[in-house]
Amino acid sequence: MAHLIDGRLLAAKLQQDLTTKAHNLKIKLGRDLCLAVILVGNDPASQIYVSKKTQKASEMGISSRPHILPETTSQAELNALINTLNKDITIDGILLQLPLPVYLDRLESISQIAPQKDIDGLHPINQGLLFQGRPTLAPCTPQGCIQLIKSCCDDLTGAHAVVVGTSVLVGRPLVPMLSALGATVTLANSKTRHLATITSQADILISATGRAGLITADHVKPGAIVIDVGITRHNGKLTGDVDFEAVKTKASFITPVPGGVGPMTIMNLMANVIKTAESN
Amino acid sequence: MAHLIDGRLLAAKLQQDLTTKAHNLKIKLGRDLCLAVILVGNDPASQIYVSKKTQKASEMGISSRPHILPETTSQAELNALINTLNKDITIDGILLQLPLPVYLDRLESISQIAPQKDIDGLHPINQGLLFQGRPTLAPCTPQGCIQLIKSCCDDLTGAHAVVVGTSVLVGRPLVPMLSALGATVTLANSKTRHLATITSQADILISATGRAGLITADHVKPGAIVIDVGITRHNGKLTGDVDFEAVKTKASFITPVPGGVGPMTIMNLMANVIKTAESN
Repeated sequence: MAHLIDGRLLAAKLQQDLTTKAHNLKIKLGRDLCLAVILVGNDPASQIYVSKKTQKASEMGISSRPHILPETTSQAELNALINTLNKDITIDGILLQLPLPVYLDRLESISQIAPQKDIDGLHPINQGLLFQGRPTLAPCTPQGCIQLIKSCCDDLTGAHAVVVGTSVLVGRPLVPMLSALGATVTLANSKTRHLATITSQADILISATGRAGLITADHVKPGAIVIDVGITRHNGKLTGDVDFEAVKTKASFITPVPGGVGPMTIMNLMANVIKTAESN
Repeated sequence: MAHLIDGRLLAAKLQQDLTTKAHNLKIKLGRDLCLAVILVGNDPASQIYVSKKTQKASEMGISSRPHILPETTSQAELNALINTLNKDITIDGILLQLPLPVYLDRLESISQIAPQKDIDGLHPINQGLLFQGRPTLAPCTPQGCIQLIKSCCDDLTGAHAVVVGTSVLVGRPLVPMLSALGATVTLANSKTRHLATITSQADILISATGRAGLITADHVKPGAIVIDVGITRHNGKLTGDVDFEAVKTKASFITPVPGGVGPMTIMNLMANVIKTAESN
């Protein structure tokens, strides 16, 4: 039976350290650390995410400035707001809540954010630096995945990690991050043939597809570490990519959904705000 | 017995098209297309590479401006030269010949090149755009690898590609490039355990390590496409990563060394010069 990787517990520990750091930094800078959050439109899930983030910031003594824009906001208006925030020296980090309404260009919008305030780590220059193994602001969810893996495995050298899902937010950034730690990394996608044959070779399996129940016991090597990034609402209940009940009997370590990767993502967002404030 | 993938032939075809393109562009712009080449120090292999590149440019009606700097050049001096070339509107592309002398910082130096003149596709912002699947200047060798693969395989959807070697120049960029074409991609490194087990699952195997003879017949799945990027001088003879004689009996397609990837790399450099000139 697999050990549970408790993302809430790990995030709580991280929160303690980061809160102290934020507090000291606030004294040093003589002002509040501040996170600007941009939300365009009325997506209910996004509203919940934004409120979770600002609430967590507040708990940690970090102030936030939400900008809630109507669904009619043009690309030019969005860019103009980002530009104002880029220049505002009292703002440490800028978070553009995704997804954007379809008529706005996500990558174009992200590229407007000053790289040194890009706490989501999605600006092409930050992703390029990550790709090259250089210091940068890394995306929050992959950072959380790495911390969860490291909490149960000291050394990834030579381990085979399989990442399912190729998003710019999670799957792709994990490749250079895991490779830099010495792992062999396989990036699988929705077209992958014989997925179970590929994933069942993984010492570390990370699924980030949002397809509930995609990863069954047949997809998992006995003793593997399984990190479930997927999160979908299924029959009114939050479900991951992994068939938890079946897989937990086979894996050595597994993250639950909820309570696995989620809390780590928010905490790494706070870590990135502190990092940007430190370099100011 | 494998079919030979003739890089020289493919490069020659590409050269014809690109020469016409360069010629038309020259008329349109009313000036020569121009490639600036920077070489620091006296590395004999680098001198040969630089002269091959300028010679190929000349054949195609593209002029070049070599800057040969002494081994004593400081980082500040190198940066200053790059900056001058960035601002020179008669220069379309800047090539910084690698490797640099060890006392210079390669990634720092590359970051000085204006992204729109970075014909090697190594600037972090270009690598980030590539990583995100957006239009950019892609590195030349991986571009060549993709063209060689496509010359013998129309559709990579669902194919398993294994890349051995994690360099920023070849191995890493191949991951998003192959993944964007629908392939499952595995990135192996020098610490990979059971390398032969991993590589022998590859429908497409690309080796870019510079370790002569690393890939034996045991590493190759029958019918695989094998692309050999490695090039080392071995007993006075150029050798790839792949044991060509043994592997050619097992693969369906294979590149020779020399005459495989090499000619395609130079040709993609010219393609990138033309691309930068076009967007001027």
